[in-house]
This record gives sequence, C-alpha cells and structure tokens, in this order.
Amino acid sequence: MQYLLKVFFKYFMSLVIIGTVAFDAIETPFGKTDKIVGGAATYASLAASYFCDNVKIVGVVGDDFNEEDIKEFKNHGIDVEGLQIKEGEKSFFWAGKYHNDMNSRDTLATELNVLADFDPIIPESYQDCEYLLLGNLTPQIQQTTIKRMKSRPKLIVLDTMNFWMDVAMGDLKETLTMIDVLTINDAEARQLSGEYSLVKAAKKIIAMGPKYLIIKKGEHGALLFDEDRVFSAPALPLAEVFDPTGAGDTFAGGFIGYMAKVGSVNFNNMKNAIIFGSALASFCVEKFGTEKIKNLTQEEIKSRIKEFVTLSSFVLEA
Amino acid sequence: MQYLLKVFFKYFMSLVIIGTVAFDAIETPFGKTDKIVGGAATYASLAASYFCDNVKIVGVVGDDFNEEDIKEFKNHGIDVEGLQIKEGEKSFFWAGKYHNDMNSRDTLATELNVLADFDPIIPESYQDCEYLLLGNLTPQIQQTTIKRMKSRPKLIVLDTMNFWMDVAMGDLKETLTMIDVLTINDAEARQLSGEYSLVKAAKKIIAMGPKYLIIKKGEHGALLFDEDRVFSAPALPLAEVFDPTGAGDTFAGGFIGYMAKVGSVNFNNMKNAIIFGSALASFCVEKFGTEKIKNLTQEEIKSRIKEFVTLSSFVLEA
Repeated sequence: MQYLLKVFFKYFMSLVIIGTVAFDAIETPFGKTDKIVGGAATYASLAASYFCDNVKIVGVVGDDFNEEDIKEFKNHGIDVEGLQIKEGEKSFFWAGKYHNDMNSRDTLATELNVLADFDPIIPESYQDCEYLLLGNLTPQIQQTTIKRMKSRPKLIVLDTMNFWMDVAMGDLKETLTMIDVLTINDAEARQLSGEYSLVKAAKKIIAMGPKYLIIKKGEHGALLFDEDRVFSAPALPLAEVFDPTGAGDTFAGGFIGYMAKVGSVNFNNMKNAIIFGSALASFCVEKFGTEKIKNLTQEEIKSRIKEFVTLSSFVLEA
Repeated sequence: MQYLLKVFFKYFMSLVIIGTVAFDAIETPFGKTDKIVGGAATYASLAASYFCDNVKIVGVVGDDFNEEDIKEFKNHGIDVEGLQIKEGEKSFFWAGKYHNDMNSRDTLATELNVLADFDPIIPESYQDCEYLLLGNLTPQIQQTTIKRMKSRPKLIVLDTMNFWMDVAMGDLKETLTMIDVLTINDAEARQLSGEYSLVKAAKKIIAMGPKYLIIKKGEHGALLFDEDRVFSAPALPLAEVFDPTGAGDTFAGGFIGYMAKVGSVNFNNMKNAIIFGSALASFCVEKFGTEKIKNLTQEEIKSRIKEFVTLSSFVLEA
C-alpha cells in the first residue's frame, strides 16, 4: 500500500521546473570561473530538491553538456526526462562580471545557441504536475508550457525580468493572467506597474492576474502581497557575498519546493516558503555558481532557518 | 508618596534631546509648505513624548519663533527650559525639494542663523538625565552636551550624517567613543567604515565605540547590531509617502522614548524600541512636517504597532 501511495505521489504530486540550463562564466571581486553549469532551472531545481522528492526539469542543452553535469541533477533526485539534449549544438552561454558592490554587473557575453529555438517538450509523466515553476524565459515559452499540461497545476509561479517587459510586454501581460504567483524585483515591479510606491504597484500587478506578488529586494529581503495583505521577509545580512548569480532562481526554487512539501496554498504557507527560499538563496551567494547549494544538508538548512527566526522576531510587551 | 515618587522621577528619570529647532520650507510632488516648524529636536521630542512623560529639549531659536510654536512643545509635556531664544536673531532655516522618488532631494536654502554659534545650555534640572539623544548637530556640540551632564547618562544615542563625516571625521570619531547607540543610514555606515558589507561595517563601527549600531534603511527598514547579534526590522510599506522630512529624527525620538519608558537597556528592548520608532516614523511621512506626529493618539500608535507585528511575523512548522 505504501508503495502504491509512493507511486501515486510520484506521478501526481510533482513539481515541474522549466528554465534555462546553461554554462556561465562569472567574474566577481573574489575571483573568476571557467564555464560552470548554471541557468535558472539548474539553481531552482537544486534548491527545490531539498524540500520535494519529485522535481522534474524541462530545458534544453547542447552536446557540450556532459554526463557528469546531468548526473548532478540525478544525484538530487531530479527527473531529467524533460531536458532535451541537442546533438551537434551548444548550450546557452552567459558571461558576466560583477562590480565591487555586487549589486550591478556587466554582461560580457550572451550566446543563445540551443535556446534560440527552444520548444519545450513536456513528457507525459510531467503533464499532471501540481506545482509549476516557470523560470525566466520568453513569456511565449512560459505560456506554451502551461498549455501543454493536461490539467491546470494547483500552483503556478512565474519568474521574469525587465528584459521581457522591454521587448515582449504584451505576451508577458497575457501570461500573467494564467498564473498564481509572480516573482520580480522592486525595479521590475515599478516598471511593470508604472507606480513608484510598491503598495500601489502590487495592487496594479495583482489586478493583472496573479493572486500573489513577491517583490525580491536582494539584501533588503522580500515582500509578499496578496489582494489585501502584505508580509515583509528579512534577508540575512552577510559578511561576504561571493557570487550573486542564481540567487533569485534559488529563491524561487526553494519557495515552490517548500510549497509542494506543505501541500496547501495559502498566505501563511507562502510566508514560510519565502523564508525557506531566502535561506537557500543566502547559501547560494556564499560560493561560486551552484557549488554551495549542490551540497547542503538538512541540518545546515534548519540551522539557517533558525537564524532567520532570530533575526526578525520580536516579542512586544502587552 | 505617589506625589513624591512623581517628583523623584521627574527629576531623575528624564530624557534630554538636543538638536535643531528650525523652520523648514518643503516641496514634494504633493505640494509645498511655507515656513513650518521643523528640526531634529522638534521631531524627536514630539515622538518621544508619546512614551515618556519627562522629555526635555535643548536647542536654540531666534525671536521669529513665536509663543504658539513653543506652546506645541508644552502641550506634549516637553520641558523647554533648555531652548534658548535669541532676541534679534533668526532661527535656523532649511528649504528643500524632494524628487519624484522621494528618496533624493535638493537643498534649496540653508541659513544657519542662530545655529552658527550655538552653545548648548544644559539647565540644572537636565543634568542628571538618564537618557540622552544627541540629534544631528556638529560632533563638537554633541560632545560638549555629554560633558555638561553631572553624571554619565545610562543611555546615550547619537544621530549623525555624512556631512560630518566629510568635514569633521576626527571629532565624530572622538564622540563615538563616548556614546552607546549610533543611528545612521546604510550609505553612511559604508562611508564611516569603508566597508560595503553592512555586517563588516557594523563590526568596524562597534569597534569605534558604540555598543549598538542602528542602520536606517528607509523604506527597507532598519538593522540593529551589537557585537555579535543582528536584528532586522521591517518598514511598513506605504501607499503614499507625503513628506519624508524628519522621519529619521522621529525614529530616533520614538526609539529613545520607548527605551526610557521600559527603563532597562538590553538588546530585546532595543528591538522593540526600533519597532516603536519605525511606527512613529511611518506616521511622520504621511503628512507635511510635524502635522501628523503632533496629533497622535495612543490608540493609533497601538494599532500601527499591530500592523508591524502582522507584517513581519511568521510561524514555522516544527
């Protein structure tokens, strides 16, 4: 019976994550890397795997992506049936250099390669997923992914960026009507809504479709809005930010992974999911690329979560 | 007996606040004011008066400061014996214009007037104060104020700004060795310490003298550091920021007023004091100048505090 239940959950209670799987070359004031594995779906699925046993990835790579790289996903129990490998083509490549403040960066190279004509294949075993994370990609691909599901997932989270607001605002707005949670940063919330006040921005964005809006503020934490509530989550003040690459994707993956774990969608669970997502993101920036989030223990995560509680809790006298 | 106790507390348990008492002319995207009463000591003492019955102000004004203006302090139970009135002279005047984002402003006029040769007079009845707030002024005057107390107050809070780091760093650093709590913003913490990471900045600043450092981050809340702990307080997301003038002073006044009320100096009380200071500051920005913080009820404050609790509390499953 237990086995049957497990099979049942394996099939139905899954979390699908779509996004880039890529090579990055990163330079920060602390050093530089050769091509290392990166991409939104990579960070997000690794983060989610600490909370959810049934993470399935959708993406595309070239034949420069080797067995070892794919094994890393498998080691984390991540299903790679939806990861297309294009023979004779090269994976998406991004190179960037962070400035001293780590809050701004220059893009040195963007080679789309296999991403240029990416058409997501959603395997049969993915199509009943309950949780869906649409990592940063063209709004068209994000929309297609939703449409290729047999039934509408219970929770759809969409991550996007200013670039798509600049070049594909119409598509993005259409996609926003199909999702539950949007995660963007504060500048993007202002751009999308045309409002400087984040409270007003949230009202306008929620009117565009998503029931929940998460505004990521980096070192200043995150805000969660629904139609009439707001939650402010702290960020852990860190002595060293070694490499910010992938922090937002890690946050999103930790967030939806935790939601899939607790299994019911409500504001309180989302508050906690933001704390878990933030905790994972705080690990992410401590080392280059996925180095840190590849090798976490549940003990480390628990202890980091405790730091968040200590950091932000206060007890007022009556 | 109760009367004697009251007299006793009136004398010993007092909170002295020194700072500018001034006229401001403010322009924001929402409108502009003629000369209205402002200044660090004005905002701070009004805020503190909601928590502490025994606030005493030290400052200087010209004879353009009229009886009505002084009555406002008295209405809040604020002792004005230390407020010098210079006949034939004019009060400090500042005029400024805020940009659309409300986070930056242009100074249109600064007329020092009476402030140019301000020598603080600390009345006899002030000299045993237990709590001392040194509002933004030259570090020399802040230092002189400490020296003119009969005994060292139990808690000395100092507020300062980048200007004094530019023109009087030596004096400022000397003053830092004499105080308990420093309140500055994040850019100032970076300037004072030469460290970009606020964790590293806090370590360096605490090594300069203060036992506690409060980093004010405006719409992103505040951080409290001691030698080995950190607390992150949220800011209330507001739909409208009408006029940010005085928010930092109001925060500092609410902070020390609450500390004087609870009466014991420790990290936990400071966390709560930051919440109370932030609540008062959130009122401050809702109207021009002191208009809002002049007329608060305890009910309004309680209800605002509840909003802060709701905003930032989360309960994690075991």
